[in-house]
Amino acid sequence: MTRLRLDIGYDGSAFHGWAAQSGLRTVQGELELWLERFLGCPTPLTCAGRTDAGVHARGQVAHLDVESDDPDASAAELQRRLARALPDDLAVRRVSLAPDGFDARFAAVWRRYVYRLSDASAPDPLLRGWVLPVQGELDVDAMDAAGAALLGLHDFAAFCKRREGASTIRTLLGCGVRRVPEGLLSGVVEVEVRADAFCHSMVRSLTGALLRVGQGRQGVDWPASLLGSSGRVGSVPVLPPDGLVLEEVGYPPDDQLAARAIEARARRDDCPDCQEDA
Amino acid sequence: MTRLRLDIGYDGSAFHGWAAQSGLRTVQGELELWLERFLGCPTPLTCAGRTDAGVHARGQVAHLDVESDDPDASAAELQRRLARALPDDLAVRRVSLAPDGFDARFAAVWRRYVYRLSDASAPDPLLRGWVLPVQGELDVDAMDAAGAALLGLHDFAAFCKRREGASTIRTLLGCGVRRVPEGLLSGVVEVEVRADAFCHSMVRSLTGALLRVGQGRQGVDWPASLLGSSGRVGSVPVLPPDGLVLEEVGYPPDDQLAARAIEARARRDDCPDCQEDA
Repeated sequence: MTRLRLDIGYDGSAFHGWAAQSGLRTVQGELELWLERFLGCPTPLTCAGRTDAGVHARGQVAHLDVESDDPDASAAELQRRLARALPDDLAVRRVSLAPDGFDARFAAVWRRYVYRLSDASAPDPLLRGWVLPVQGELDVDAMDAAGAALLGLHDFAAFCKRREGASTIRTLLGCGVRRVPEGLLSGVVEVEVRADAFCHSMVRSLTGALLRVGQGRQGVDWPASLLGSSGRVGSVPVLPPDGLVLEEVGYPPDDQLAARAIEARARRDDCPDCQEDA
Repeated sequence: MTRLRLDIGYDGSAFHGWAAQSGLRTVQGELELWLERFLGCPTPLTCAGRTDAGVHARGQVAHLDVESDDPDASAAELQRRLARALPDDLAVRRVSLAPDGFDARFAAVWRRYVYRLSDASAPDPLLRGWVLPVQGELDVDAMDAAGAALLGLHDFAAFCKRREGASTIRTLLGCGVRRVPEGLLSGVVEVEVRADAFCHSMVRSLTGALLRVGQGRQGVDWPASLLGSSGRVGSVPVLPPDGLVLEEVGYPPDDQLAARAIEARARRDDCPDCQEDA
C-alpha cells in the first residue's frame, strides 16, 4: 500500500463539517465520493482536524492508502482529476506521497486556527463569509494580553462542549491577537490559536471569551480565571463558525514521524473522538 | 445644499453593475432606494466609476446633495442608518462632508483597478468570486513588461467596446503585474491598472491581452502593437468581471478641487457617457 497526503482547502459555508454523515453534504463525504469513483473502491480518508459545520480550511491535511505500482504517477493523476471534478467550494491543493510513518491525524503535533473579526461599521463585502462582523470597537491589546495568559498546559473544560470520556486537557502553544495593519484585510482583527489539539468548539469559545474582553465587557484576567473549571462556563459565548479557518497543521521532520505516530496513537487510544475539533 | 461623499464597497456578483436600470438590481438603484427612504425625497448619486455587471469595488466614491442645518450630524446619521439597512454585499464604509468643489466623477484624477488571477491547479475556495482561475502557469515578468509598454497617452480603441461619439484616448498612469509573495493571497497574480479614466471594458481587455502574454500565446510586444488601432481588436479577450475590483479613486488636494472640477467638466462635456467604465 502507498499512503498519499492531501492538502485541502474549503469554504465551509455549505458543508455540514468535515465528518461524513448520512444524507448531509460534508467535506469527507464529497471527497470520498470522488475518490471511490477515481480509485474504483471505497477509500476512507483520515484528517488532521475534523472541523465543525460552517468552519473553513486553507490548510486541512488528510491521508488515504492506495494500491499503486507507480505512486508518483498516481498522486499526480489524482491531483489532476480532483482539480477538474471538485465543486468550487472545495479544493485539493496538492496530492503527494506521504513519508514513512505519516498519519494525518496521529502524527500532527499542532493545529493552527485563525478567527477573523471585523469591528468596522461597514465591513468589506468581499470578505463576508469568513470575517465575522462584531459590534463596538475592539481593544486588541487587551485581547492579546488575555490570550497570552491562557498559554500552556491546562484543563480547558470551561471552553469545551463536553463529550463523554473525552479529556479537555490541552497544551495551548500560541494565542495572539492583532489588527492587520495593511493590505486587503486592513483593520481586521485576527485571533490566532495554536495547540497540540483542540476539544469540541474550543477555538470558537476561546475567541468568544477574548471578544468579551475586547468589547470591555470582561476584564483581561477573566478568560484565564476560567481555566480549571470542571465544565463548560455558560457566560463564554461560542462564536458562529463563519470567522474560523483551519490554516495549518504541523508535523515533525520526516525522520521522526514513525516514532512519534506510534507514541501519539498509544497516548490517545483511550480518547478516540475528541482530539481535533475546533 | 450640502454635498456628502460616500465611500462604498460591494461584491458585484449579484448586481447588474453600478448604473440604475429599471427592473434590475444595481448598486446605484439599491443605494438610492435607501437614500430616498432616509432623506424623504429622491436623491440622485454621482459616482467615480460606473462599474459593469459583476465588477466589485472596495474604493468606489459617490456624492449626493442634501438640505441640512447640521451637516456633520446628517453625515453621521446617514452612515449609521445605511450600515444597518444595507444588504451584506453592499457597504457604505464612510459618509463625510465633501470639500468645496468636490465632484465624485469630474474631480477624480485617476481610478485604480486590480484584476486578480490564480494559476494554481486548485485555487483557494475562500477567494472564489473575486480571483479568476486561469489555466497554465503565468509568466508574470513577461506580463509586467508588456504592461509597462502601454503606459502613457494613447488611443486604446483596440481594448474598448466602442460607444458612439466616445473618445478612446486615455492616459495610462500605471500598469503593473506581480505575484503576491505571501499572506492570504500568496501566489495570486495581480494586474494593477491606473488611468485618468477608462473606456468601456478597457481593464478587462487590457488584462485579457496581458493574460495571453503570460500564457505564452502572444509575445511581450503584442499588446503595445495594438495601440492606435482604429477599433476593437477581436483577438483581445474580454475577461469576465469576477476578477475585477475598483480599489481606489484619486482626487486632487482640497484647495485645487474647484478649479480642476470646472476644467474637467468642460473637457468632457462632449463625451458624457464613456469616462469611467471598466
